[in-house]
Amino acid sequence: MPIRAVVWGENVHEQTNKTVSDLYPDGMHGTIAAALQSDDVTATTATLQDPEHGLTAERLAETDVLLWWGHAAHGDVSDAVAERVVEAVWSGMGFIALHSAHFAKPFKRLMGSACNLTWREAGERERLWVTSRNHPIAAGLPDHFTLENEEMYGEPFGVPEPLETVFISWFQGGEVFRSGLTYKRGAGNVFYFRPGHETYPTYHDPNVQRVLQNAVRWAYNPARRVVGVNDAPNVPVDQALEPIQERGPRLHQDGEEGFR
Amino acid sequence: MPIRAVVWGENVHEQTNKTVSDLYPDGMHGTIAAALQSDDVTATTATLQDPEHGLTAERLAETDVLLWWGHAAHGDVSDAVAERVVEAVWSGMGFIALHSAHFAKPFKRLMGSACNLTWREAGERERLWVTSRNHPIAAGLPDHFTLENEEMYGEPFGVPEPLETVFISWFQGGEVFRSGLTYKRGAGNVFYFRPGHETYPTYHDPNVQRVLQNAVRWAYNPARRVVGVNDAPNVPVDQALEPIQERGPRLHQDGEEGFR
Amino acid sequence: MPIRAVVWGENVHEQTNKTVSDLYPDGMHGTIAAALQSDDVTATTATLQDPEHGLTAERLAETDVLLWWGHAAHGDVSDAVAERVVEAVWSGMGFIALHSAHFAKPFKRLMGSACNLTWREAGERERLWVTSRNHPIAAGLPDHFTLENEEMYGEPFGVPEPLETVFISWFQGGEVFRSGLTYKRGAGNVFYFRPGHETYPTYHDPNVQRVLQNAVRWAYNPARRVVGVNDAPNVPVDQALEPIQERGPRLHQDGEEGFR
Amino acid sequence: MPIRAVVWGENVHEQTNKTVSDLYPDGMHGTIAAALQSDDVTATTATLQDPEHGLTAERLAETDVLLWWGHAAHGDVSDAVAERVVEAVWSGMGFIALHSAHFAKPFKRLMGSACNLTWREAGERERLWVTSRNHPIAAGLPDHFTLENEEMYGEPFGVPEPLETVFISWFQGGEVFRSGLTYKRGAGNVFYFRPGHETYPTYHDPNVQRVLQNAVRWAYNPARRVVGVNDAPNVPVDQALEPIQERGPRLHQDGEEGFR
Repeated sequence: MPIRAVVWGENVHEQTNKTVSDLYPDGMHGTIAAALQSDDVTATTATLQDPEHGLTAERLAETDVLLWWGHAAHGDVSDAVAERVVEAVWSGMGFIALHSAHFAKPFKRLMGSACNLTWREAGERERLWVTSRNHPIAAGLPDHFTLENEEMYGEPFGVPEPLETVFISWFQGGEVFRSGLTYKRGAGNVFYFRPGHETYPTYHDPNVQRVLQNAVRWAYNPARRVVGVNDAPNVPVDQALEPIQERGPRLHQDGEEGFR
Repeated sequence: MPIRAVVWGENVHEQTNKTVSDLYPDGMHGTIAAALQSDDVTATTATLQDPEHGLTAERLAETDVLLWWGHAAHGDVSDAVAERVVEAVWSGMGFIALHSAHFAKPFKRLMGSACNLTWREAGERERLWVTSRNHPIAAGLPDHFTLENEEMYGEPFGVPEPLETVFISWFQGGEVFRSGLTYKRGAGNVFYFRPGHETYPTYHDPNVQRVLQNAVRWAYNPARRVVGVNDAPNVPVDQALEPIQERGPRLHQDGEEGFR
Repeated sequence: MPIRAVVWGENVHEQTNKTVSDLYPDGMHGTIAAALQSDDVTATTATLQDPEHGLTAERLAETDVLLWWGHAAHGDVSDAVAERVVEAVWSGMGFIALHSAHFAKPFKRLMGSACNLTWREAGERERLWVTSRNHPIAAGLPDHFTLENEEMYGEPFGVPEPLETVFISWFQGGEVFRSGLTYKRGAGNVFYFRPGHETYPTYHDPNVQRVLQNAVRWAYNPARRVVGVNDAPNVPVDQALEPIQERGPRLHQDGEEGFR
Repeated sequence: MPIRAVVWGENVHEQTNKTVSDLYPDGMHGTIAAALQSDDVTATTATLQDPEHGLTAERLAETDVLLWWGHAAHGDVSDAVAERVVEAVWSGMGFIALHSAHFAKPFKRLMGSACNLTWREAGERERLWVTSRNHPIAAGLPDHFTLENEEMYGEPFGVPEPLETVFISWFQGGEVFRSGLTYKRGAGNVFYFRPGHETYPTYHDPNVQRVLQNAVRWAYNPARRVVGVNDAPNVPVDQALEPIQERGPRLHQDGEEGFR
């Protein structure tokens, strides 16, 4: 069965800004989904404007990897949907945060940190360097590649230490940024990828598309989803793996649930 | 100036359960604070029942390290205070989560994961092994130490990979648990320490007290707190470190704030 | 093309100890290779006694994942072969160190640490707990599994912090041990897996076999091997990606190799 | 008692190259040691040309933190001294590798990887960005600082994933490099710091000096050195922490040493 990717797009500037709609007539989400479509990946889209932002519990249960692009409307994403996405990640869904999604609700909740940075919108040159040789997310890429026009993001990037740093960006104006970072949260693989400002043709770039194609395969976890992802089950004394005798005072009665 | 530690206690079972109040007539928070008090550490307490749970913005601004014990009343902690604590950590305050605080709001938000586990209240033997030789949090401890009566917590523990694993527990009933884990979130050092069920005299144990004394010193960051911990400042084009010319279309006007 | 696994066995106690030869008439390496053989994995063996220990440069160039079991004869492995294995890992070959291979030359060189531990040979019970939910190396396993008779290894285990802790062992005699650890060295994935004392039938255990089958697939890196794994290439000034002028004094002449 | 730092210098180009000797009449090691000297740090020097390279077992036993600069003569460092340094690190001595020491024997052995990179000697501008806010090694530094003339080192840098990335460098010619990386090996803290090409006045720069002053304090481990850093002690059955009965066949006799 192919990997089921869903590309979530905020879909605001595509509707309100001629530069963006000219670059991405099908939306950035549409362009990304088309780039992902292949023999072993089925890519569909969802947007902020869809009922429940297109991310019902049923949809997430059938999503292997969710890509997320948002910028102007982070605050319009409902807390309930953000929480639902986060729990889907914990249960094993892959999650790829794109560019300005550093401030998206699900990404911030998964990181547990401020996720802030510095920025400049000047169409300057960005060059991405691969820092983890032969990492699956960098498969087929040269040692570095360039985007002639991009927004700058600068360090310090307010995220936890990653499992791995896969890309670091050089900017023409003098900054650097950790542009490709991997994490695991519960059973879910998480990848942050920096480029993708909406006024530039970044998602039409073959190297960027290659990164996203690789990242979907990397983030995909074929294991069955974890059920009861928040459960903290009690192990009764008489079912202990090694025979023990209960000793001392207790708070809880048999079969009782723990406090939350 | 001494390190200013604040021990936050939920203070519920101390008021309602005779076993607990007999063990901890000054509250668990009181016992812990007394154990921390020393020439270079000033320890005070705060509880759920205090106004704003004793954790006003002013108090947090003067707290170097916050220790947190909660169990029955996680849900009674206000979201505003939880968020305030989280942001204080990002700005550089140390945070030590104790035992059942694995499900406390600030800890869950800092981890970005479910923080769940298995458990059994049988007063069984727990033995903690030091896994990181000469780690400052293990200073002065033997290679292992035993708590004759403790609640069991079992793996999988739903937390992100730590920076370092400092302790792993062996349980009489057959389980293991990563009992001492370090993290960094923003400028703040975070430590989780497992033992401390309220019906046992754990916080009177000299080795446990030693761990907490060490952990306060480890978590303390002498640097001045980060101001504007959520800021994402724009760097104007004409202030770029390397001279650049603005190119291509733009979304933002000069001096504009970014989207959040 | 199937993944090409090579199981390296020291093959000493199989020849000299009746207990071991009765348990493993084809050698431990033979038993492991048979367990790995499948539609997508081709497993062959190599031993200490083979010319160049069976690990010529040609053989390693055609090896995707090398599994290593050694114990009594670590010192008999030639430094040249150990170094060759290490460089193959850096170039992308997967490496799985089994049990007493914690002290094997290639593993120690890859870790950069003492790799020591405590031990006891008493045929006691070991129980392995999965600590990383849905990790590919734990695919298809229960939350824990038991080996009724094993040698004990105890913490502190003298290895660097891993990328991920996948298994932790509980021992009947009171110890714990980080039994499944992942690393990356250069382009190569490295996994350490604890069980496997030669006087017990560990490698006949279906759960242990499952771990090894999973680990081979996890360690396999499909990317083409890195060529010149020790190269530190000079980038001539006139080929800099951004135009620069040479300034200041220099040590090296154009096209010169760096010092090593 | 002050922290006892030893600055090891290869001391070759200081003797043979007028540019270097003019910049560093006391040797780079001398300049660095002078910068470290303070109320709580005593800094001395050692060089390649000293008997046993100035690093006898006695000297290392009294060294809290060793800084290492080498370039042209890595191969002249004796394997015995390199191994002695590595074991001192495992026992708790801090180790700071400077610039071209990425290829020094002790650093390569501690990393377990190729430690290679790309390079260019053009006196170009380097800008170091702090990536870990309020990290003790960055104490007192601005968000970034610039070295007007430095050698370029480019990614991929062949080192394992660090515990923390503290600095990343931007180079005028278009490259980036992870310039400040922390590790732990055994009980010893390890820091790699990139700048320091011998034909430039880098070690006279106040920000560079500040980094080294901070790094010495960070790397210092006040715990007593680990004795028997390679020991793998047997735990006799009758001294097991939990009572067990020996079962099954065995290889070893009581009190026997394990294989190495």
